[in-house]
Amino acid sequence: MSDTLRRLAAVIESRKGGDPEKSYVARLFHKGDDGILKKIGEEATEVVMAAKDAQHAGNQGDTRAKLVGETADLWFHCMVMLAHHDLSPDDVLTELARREGLSGIEEKALRKVRAREQAGD
Amino acid sequence: MSDTLRRLAAVIESRKGGDPEKSYVARLFHKGDDGILKKIGEEATEVVMAAKDAQHAGNQGDTRAKLVGETADLWFHCMVMLAHHDLSPDDVLTELARREGLSGIEEKALRKVRAREQAGD
Amino acid sequence: MSDTLRRLAAVIESRKGGDPEKSYVARLFHKGDDGILKKIGEEATEVVMAAKDAQHAGNQGDTRAKLVGETADLWFHCMVMLAHHDLSPDDVLTELARREGLSGIEEKALRKVRAREQAGD
Amino acid sequence: MSDTLRRLAAVIESRKGGDPEKSYVARLFHKGDDGILKKIGEEATEVVMAAKDAQHAGNQGDTRAKLVGETADLWFHCMVMLAHHDLSPDDVLTELARREGLSGIEEKALRKVRAREQAGD
Repeated sequence: MSDTLRRLAAVIESRKGGDPEKSYVARLFHKGDDGILKKIGEEATEVVMAAKDAQHAGNQGDTRAKLVGETADLWFHCMVMLAHHDLSPDDVLTELARREGLSGIEEKALRKVRAREQAGD
Repeated sequence: MSDTLRRLAAVIESRKGGDPEKSYVARLFHKGDDGILKKIGEEATEVVMAAKDAQHAGNQGDTRAKLVGETADLWFHCMVMLAHHDLSPDDVLTELARREGLSGIEEKALRKVRAREQAGD
Repeated sequence: MSDTLRRLAAVIESRKGGDPEKSYVARLFHKGDDGILKKIGEEATEVVMAAKDAQHAGNQGDTRAKLVGETADLWFHCMVMLAHHDLSPDDVLTELARREGLSGIEEKALRKVRAREQAGD
Repeated sequence: MSDTLRRLAAVIESRKGGDPEKSYVARLFHKGDDGILKKIGEEATEVVMAAKDAQHAGNQGDTRAKLVGETADLWFHCMVMLAHHDLSPDDVLTELARREGLSGIEEKALRKVRAREQAGD
């Protein structure tokens, strides 16, 4: 796994049971599932808005850095959600590798598409 | 960067301009921004639903594997969106590392929270 | 309740148990909760994208009609979700009226904001 | 249009340019597009979570009331977004009526589904 993701996951893990007044992550854990999931919905929306701004700006200026920052926020909150369920980014990377060559993912996605076609959906 | 993410990003990149009939990723690129962003909204919703199922099932059985799979789908479609804007997961990891020690992220998040408090929001 | 919403709710209700091959709504009911909720996440994302397009276009041309159409799609799928739980738009309007004068909603929202401030969030 | 929606739209309209310190809606208008859209993403996520809770609770107890409340919040924030673009819930109801008999909506939805099938998507 990426060293960055591994180090970040370790820091997130260390915040479990921490002081909600001193740590943003401890505060999220303290709020529990719904508080964390609400953030994922919010951050995904911010990724979509940043991508629309980048699209309209022809990817000029700050819009690309903004898009990277919002994606980092989304992935970060996904990592907090994973930790809350005692899972790690390593589990996600293993799953991505398992499907890999991309052929796997594409096959799965195309299978779903074809299944949907047959179901008339 | 993680080898898995790097290899996956390379495969995604290689699908640009590919045949939409043969590759799921080529099809997404062909649809353009809005088609890709719609998938991000959809996959984020599926992460939230899978997390609720895991929560209600007490993290038993298949619910954890489902949650990992949905998170993999969300990150994967984020990578397609990044590639569409000529960005890579490496940009996201660099941004996460920049804020690192987590202290950076927590400081930023707590600063926002405090600013919001002062604004009475 | 609005006559339009009432008529629409009646038609949606009449599709329960209908043929998924002949009716889009019967098909949604057939898919069940997760299929319906996935659509809500998708339609909410489309509202956000349409609003960004309207913003960048200075509300010119078709962007406003697009925004109205996407909002109609979102509300429509909310009505299917409500019907799936044996609820109706009337329940939603009653709730909105209950908070009314807007004073109610604003008080509730400001109370939440103040509570969040005190919690340091 | 529903009297409730009309009255609510009038109150929302009256908050334009109001004091962000005194009115939640004035505060939203003051934040502008992105602040309002962020709330729509957040409220849509809360609808999805409330529906999952209702599903797992077998629609018992408070879960249905919670679901109605979250849907009211989502529609309310949609109305603020519409007002920000000088649109009204009446525009949405007119659009819903236009497609009506539901036949219109179903035809449109099924046409999209069939088009997607032909495109192999």
